[in-house]
Amino acid sequence: MITPAAKADKTQIADITARAGVFSREEIDSVPAMFDEYIQYGAEASGYHFIVYREGEQVLGYAIYGYRDLTDGVYDLYWIAVDPQARRKGVGRALLTACEEAVRQAGGRLLIAETSGTAEYESTREFYLRTGFVNEASIRDFYKPGDDLKIFVKRLQPSEA
Amino acid sequence: MITPAAKADKTQIADITARAGVFSREEIDSVPAMFDEYIQYGAEASGYHFIVYREGEQVLGYAIYGYRDLTDGVYDLYWIAVDPQARRKGVGRALLTACEEAVRQAGGRLLIAETSGTAEYESTREFYLRTGFVNEASIRDFYKPGDDLKIFVKRLQPSEA
Repeated sequence: MITPAAKADKTQIADITARAGVFSREEIDSVPAMFDEYIQYGAEASGYHFIVYREGEQVLGYAIYGYRDLTDGVYDLYWIAVDPQARRKGVGRALLTACEEAVRQAGGRLLIAETSGTAEYESTREFYLRTGFVNEASIRDFYKPGDDLKIFVKRLQPSEA
Repeated sequence: MITPAAKADKTQIADITARAGVFSREEIDSVPAMFDEYIQYGAEASGYHFIVYREGEQVLGYAIYGYRDLTDGVYDLYWIAVDPQARRKGVGRALLTACEEAVRQAGGRLLIAETSGTAEYESTREFYLRTGFVNEASIRDFYKPGDDLKIFVKRLQPSEA
């Protein structure tokens, strides 16, 4: 079941981030701060929509998306993280589908996911390509020398509802 | 003379933004909010470095730049605005040079300027190309359908100091 994250999910979200294996120390540290803003100000005002994939009491993965300021219908997919012990169960794809649905219903046209061009992120890039994103733009040596920014874009069809 | 912006510059900065002629209502409204954060928390903590080009008491233009989180040495040039009555005096170029110097001294490698692909922004894009930026990436229909995102990148040489 996918729902907006609740305050009590903070520990499990931090834990999944730390164990995901692809995030830097700085990235791992940034999630609780974003989560606190989400809890304190709400998803709209903070700009961080946290959603979780839950099985009973357990959080198996989460995603963060948010509206890009000064655009008409552009949303950033900041983060999708899945518990390494819950891989290959479709958790990531289900979270992505839930983000897309929510963005579409909010009038979003574009979902943007930024990731790295290094070998470590190959499975992330493959995930985006498999789920309908296109690598529309790249910036060389962005994160650091030898570590390019890859911007993946998914163009959403208007909601059928 | 170019200096960090002072609290008293807020009115002139807002005024230049409104009269610049290229910013949307939403963009014009966003500058005072960024300025308040800069004044309240400082340039580092807010992430918004405001600098102004001053002639006596008068502000002729301003720029905003800031560090891009989770990167090694990437800075965004959020904004350069020049009073329409002070055009062709090199104010924009002087502001850009000051940003570059500051970014270089802070260890920055890349300066990124995002702008629109519409005809209205042609002189902005030409300004970036003339000053050493390269349009490394674009995202179609980003701001709105028919209004592409153009990402200009300038790779900075290390400071000689």
